[in-house]
Amino acid sequence: MNKIKKFNVKDDRNLSMLMDFYELTMANGYLLKGFGDKIVYFDVFYRKNPDGAGFAIAAGLQQIIDYIKNLKFSEEDIEYLKEKNMFSEDFLKYMKNFRFSGSINAIPEGTPVFPNEALITVKAKAIEAQLIETMLLITINHECLIATKTNRIVRAAKGRPVLEFGARRAQGYDGAVYGARASYIGGAAGTATTLSEQMFNVPASGTMAHSWIQFFGDEFEAFKAYAEIYPDACTLLVDTYNVLESGIPNAIKVAKEVLEPMGKRLKGIRLDSGDLAYLSKKVRKILNASGLEDCKIVVSNSLDEYIIEDLIAQGAKIDVFGVGERMITAKSDPVFGGVYKLVAVEEDGQIVPRIKLSENAEKITNPGYKTPWRLYDKETGKAIADVITLAHEKIDENKEYTIFDQENIWKKKKITKFVARKLQVPVFIDGECVYESPTLEESREYCEKQLDTLWDEVKRFVNPHKYYVDLSMELWHVKQELIQKYRVK
Amino acid sequence: MNKIKKFNVKDDRNLSMLMDFYELTMANGYLLKGFGDKIVYFDVFYRKNPDGAGFAIAAGLQQIIDYIKNLKFSEEDIEYLKEKNMFSEDFLKYMKNFRFSGSINAIPEGTPVFPNEALITVKAKAIEAQLIETMLLITINHECLIATKTNRIVRAAKGRPVLEFGARRAQGYDGAVYGARASYIGGAAGTATTLSEQMFNVPASGTMAHSWIQFFGDEFEAFKAYAEIYPDACTLLVDTYNVLESGIPNAIKVAKEVLEPMGKRLKGIRLDSGDLAYLSKKVRKILNASGLEDCKIVVSNSLDEYIIEDLIAQGAKIDVFGVGERMITAKSDPVFGGVYKLVAVEEDGQIVPRIKLSENAEKITNPGYKTPWRLYDKETGKAIADVITLAHEKIDENKEYTIFDQENIWKKKKITKFVARKLQVPVFIDGECVYESPTLEESREYCEKQLDTLWDEVKRFVNPHKYYVDLSMELWHVKQELIQKYRVK
Repeated sequence: MNKIKKFNVKDDRNLSMLMDFYELTMANGYLLKGFGDKIVYFDVFYRKNPDGAGFAIAAGLQQIIDYIKNLKFSEEDIEYLKEKNMFSEDFLKYMKNFRFSGSINAIPEGTPVFPNEALITVKAKAIEAQLIETMLLITINHECLIATKTNRIVRAAKGRPVLEFGARRAQGYDGAVYGARASYIGGAAGTATTLSEQMFNVPASGTMAHSWIQFFGDEFEAFKAYAEIYPDACTLLVDTYNVLESGIPNAIKVAKEVLEPMGKRLKGIRLDSGDLAYLSKKVRKILNASGLEDCKIVVSNSLDEYIIEDLIAQGAKIDVFGVGERMITAKSDPVFGGVYKLVAVEEDGQIVPRIKLSENAEKITNPGYKTPWRLYDKETGKAIADVITLAHEKIDENKEYTIFDQENIWKKKKITKFVARKLQVPVFIDGECVYESPTLEESREYCEKQLDTLWDEVKRFVNPHKYYVDLSMELWHVKQELIQKYRVK
Repeated sequence: MNKIKKFNVKDDRNLSMLMDFYELTMANGYLLKGFGDKIVYFDVFYRKNPDGAGFAIAAGLQQIIDYIKNLKFSEEDIEYLKEKNMFSEDFLKYMKNFRFSGSINAIPEGTPVFPNEALITVKAKAIEAQLIETMLLITINHECLIATKTNRIVRAAKGRPVLEFGARRAQGYDGAVYGARASYIGGAAGTATTLSEQMFNVPASGTMAHSWIQFFGDEFEAFKAYAEIYPDACTLLVDTYNVLESGIPNAIKVAKEVLEPMGKRLKGIRLDSGDLAYLSKKVRKILNASGLEDCKIVVSNSLDEYIIEDLIAQGAKIDVFGVGERMITAKSDPVFGGVYKLVAVEEDGQIVPRIKLSENAEKITNPGYKTPWRLYDKETGKAIADVITLAHEKIDENKEYTIFDQENIWKKKKITKFVARKLQVPVFIDGECVYESPTLEESREYCEKQLDTLWDEVKRFVNPHKYYVDLSMELWHVKQELIQKYRVK
């Protein structure tokens, strides 16, 4: 893959009106009722790891930053609202002059995250906080989904590069473009999606489709033509007619008769159908017997973490995995259920916690202005547990700290010799972006490093060990009080 | 829902470089090898209906038309290609002056379609045909997926309106915006996604989130405030604390004490959690007992066609379904497997068919420049079968026509008294758009009408009757000859 200078092709769509209509009816309502300036707190969190996994990977923050920075409403938007005949003149005027003036804390991209802890916390005027809900959720839900899924697939490949090949099966254009970005954070080595290289510097590459071979009619002629044009990057697709009887013999012929006379080597062959375990082993032998030990075997065709694990267990001779639809749509579990919940309201300068109850205990929200921490073992560097505290609380590393399971509070554990780190960093303060974004490459490396702090048991695909996200004792009490208050007797 | 004048907010992104990188390496290759002007034929088709269904719904053509019309490469794009250090100067020059000059036939949006028939057929110079592949596939795969899924959900609801509520769980921004468009074609009554109304006139509406109720702290105060602001469109979300003991009593109180004195009625209540069958029946009784027979019950919460069927079977009293993540991501089967296959190449003025073989018989492509037909029974108006013929063939309605199963050619059926209709219409001819696009509303109505031509057995959710898509005898022979030719002896 070539190293390309950054092009910064920008997505300059105005997505300000990409919101659920109720954000607008509520915003208008807050304003009319005189609550426009009231400060509220919202958390973005999710309740369940996709695929029954032990954790997820945070992604999408950069898109949220770009969105917040550019958030404004055009004349056309105001005109549209007017036509709906349900918004006040004051609200239209308000929207015309809108800018986001709130504060946002967030967990950086690439961080392994767990259910119920806030990936993002918004402190803002009620209207502002409400209007950004949908975009925050779409962004987080999409990018976390793909980064998380990719990371599973990358871990299954055990060091072999995984390339993102899924654009054509993505759910829409952004599904492809931002999906490739998220998959890079999650550990993909590159993408086939050209625009994602232009926009985000995700390394893009590709060779040929079946159409190239069909176009020539003769497979050898098609391979030969390609080798002549791209002698330094010649990976041949060998399954258009018959892998073992036509594709591989023709590829070897090209290696010998076209490339070697030029002093070049056949870089790879690609299998896109058939029994990949059987074929890859067979092909490896044939290639080696022809002195093409350095020719890589690239495979694709409906791969995911389970199939890749299985191929490796079968001793398949595969050097690179190209993964398409099952990664770019997270096919096995294609929804990341991030939610945006009101957790507190300021009243007379006091932060008053709010709760949403539910018949399902696990759907009851954690109230209050909070912050998630990660506690690491000082010796091993491994993550012990996450703890959510109220924002004003401190965790003192020099003292013993007791964590407890919030459903079974008798299950306690005393922790000593630990490092406590706040997971969120300040991103916006009073409307100003204060966050210096890492490059995508840095987020990808950060992700890889952070994964080392998780025990293997948490990273297991099936029945992973449950990593605890506990509440501080103070927060637990606030929650219990609110449950009592709103529970109908 | 208000009728809004069309705003035509445009998506003016340049998506020209949203393509798999191999389109570029192949295009450069065609040019260098002197094949740039060679005419080729590609089909867009799919192999399997999602969810084991009997058919799918065509959607996305309008986005393809917009894309093709605007397709050009910017200075920035050329600069990027140059930096990659693998494209010839001639190719860069070619790309600078690129415009699509080919011809496209396509099946109109809203048409029920079946596996293996071309939704789109492209006739163009090799480079042009290759460069548009990825965008055609993303568009078709995304919009057909969502239109098809929505149509299942809409049919399950048996006449009750289905609203698209999924933006926050969509796979990216386009997943939400174009997903809402596709779901409208598939029969959704409207969407919560504001931008989709601005862009496509999909009716958008919405009321309140839990945050509205939490914000006020007191549920009655929250309902009252909303009713005062929107007395004509007051649907109250009743499950923030407790539906039967708090939400419904407060909603009725608002109906009586706030709305009725203004001469207004409570329009609806919304249930977003809990046992929807039980709650809706209970709530209906309570509302009726309070003289609120006209108050609609809207439900949401992880609905899909199966849950809706089940709710109706249980006698749930539901007037409107709000459907989110399972529709906007087609969760149960989130990939529409459309492919783009080379089917013919022009050589010396002759259209020479091309084939792609596979170990799987059903993955062998149908070669040649073809056109799909639908045969309708003249009396009942019902669709009998689809037949794919070579483009030059005619089907004479005045003669008996024999269809046969291509896997079992002894399974024949003679058809008389039928109407034969070509499914594709010309969309581009030599680069010019010749298609007068219907409005989205028209495509939605067309879809509904076309569904009446399918037998109920084909529309069944589970084990639908297989609708036949046959080949003409002439096409069948062409295919057999090519299989023989490329089969390795």
